[in-house]
Amino acid sequence: MPRFFVSPEEINPSFMVLTGENAAHGKVLRLKNGDEVTVCDGAGTDYRCTVSDVSNGQICLVVHSVDPSHSEAKVNCTIYMALSKGDKFEHVIQKATELGAYELVCFPSARCVSKPDDKSLAKKLDRWQKIAASAAEQSRRGMIPKVRSLPSYAAAVQEAAQADLAVCFYENEDQLTFRKAIEAAPFRTAAILTGPEGGFEESEIQQAQAAGLKICTLGSRILRCETAPLCALSALMYAVGEF
Amino acid sequence: MPRFFVSPEEINPSFMVLTGENAAHGKVLRLKNGDEVTVCDGAGTDYRCTVSDVSNGQICLVVHSVDPSHSEAKVNCTIYMALSKGDKFEHVIQKATELGAYELVCFPSARCVSKPDDKSLAKKLDRWQKIAASAAEQSRRGMIPKVRSLPSYAAAVQEAAQADLAVCFYENEDQLTFRKAIEAAPFRTAAILTGPEGGFEESEIQQAQAAGLKICTLGSRILRCETAPLCALSALMYAVGEF
Repeated sequence: MPRFFVSPEEINPSFMVLTGENAAHGKVLRLKNGDEVTVCDGAGTDYRCTVSDVSNGQICLVVHSVDPSHSEAKVNCTIYMALSKGDKFEHVIQKATELGAYELVCFPSARCVSKPDDKSLAKKLDRWQKIAASAAEQSRRGMIPKVRSLPSYAAAVQEAAQADLAVCFYENEDQLTFRKAIEAAPFRTAAILTGPEGGFEESEIQQAQAAGLKICTLGSRILRCETAPLCALSALMYAVGEF
Repeated sequence: MPRFFVSPEEINPSFMVLTGENAAHGKVLRLKNGDEVTVCDGAGTDYRCTVSDVSNGQICLVVHSVDPSHSEAKVNCTIYMALSKGDKFEHVIQKATELGAYELVCFPSARCVSKPDDKSLAKKLDRWQKIAASAAEQSRRGMIPKVRSLPSYAAAVQEAAQADLAVCFYENEDQLTFRKAIEAAPFRTAAILTGPEGGFEESEIQQAQAAGLKICTLGSRILRCETAPLCALSALMYAVGEF
């Protein structure tokens, strides 16, 4: 069933209208009277609707049931990923959205090659947020993960440290497994921090540790910077009983 | 440290020569006398070597220690993925190699859109094997996962069913979690079977079940065909204590 995210002010418990990009998307899907769709408020509620009218630029819907969304994870996990080259962050946004990430945050770090200026970063954030929205629709999420950027490594570490479970992955760590960190205590929020193509510098690892993050290994194989957060997120979702 | 896979007949416990593509790769890396490299026999043994001579088309190495590779997983997990469009299988080969997959096998299924003929499949397999080799070098694997194809869905199901833990993922399954399947009994070999873009048909699921595969869910979010095997493999490696 097609899925559309609308802003809270567009929500009406009995009758709704899809406009703008949602209506254009509905047109691509060739929606017609009687078709069923799901409208999400992006805050955990799904509205099952029937198309009652398709006209130029808008699609009218009659709501026939209102249900809590069942596709949000029990744990809010935010991915903090160092700025990387090419489309790697886009790839991570798409996949992490499918896998149930709560938010995605990028930040600069010492060995980052990609260093977009403010203007180009604003443009990228706009595109990244659209990728998250599209992946959320396709994977039937109950919300769209927010995509944000932070101005420094220090800011990322400081924010990540606020989570109940805050982990920084480091390829030179070989003692503390992710499992040990996960099993140490129950948690409702999690932060996964991963480095750029060249990895973190040792001083950055010390900084993360000082801020309270646990420094963990993802095993003996070296993962690419775009593989590490998705591997960790998959394992985390498995560990908390999502599948 | 750069890593090179050589065939068994090139292995010598005291002195080795890199030739062909390995030598070309070494040239790209600008290897010079005194540099350290690791040579793998692809069967679980690593040879730490020092470059003793670089000449046109070959690189001479002196072996100074021989160690078992520590980067192979405790469980041999084979990914069976239905033929998919575009470069999705290439993506899965690269990532699954990093994540420790043992083999990667593609096969046709009812809803596959991609249906390469034998000639084009042979060419693809050649390219796919090179992707696995390159990912194995980068992720420091002790072996290169083999990439194969099977002629039918029936053949894939039959082969996958031989594994100690054989699981087929289905988006309409909501009872049996992957965790329950994993925790049911100890296993040394695992098979993960996933569908094409449009998913498996119900009759295919029945066929898999009849062959002895467990039909499992990967949670309430719908994963793309290239995300599902990587999510499952990450979770499996976590579950067996790899990280």
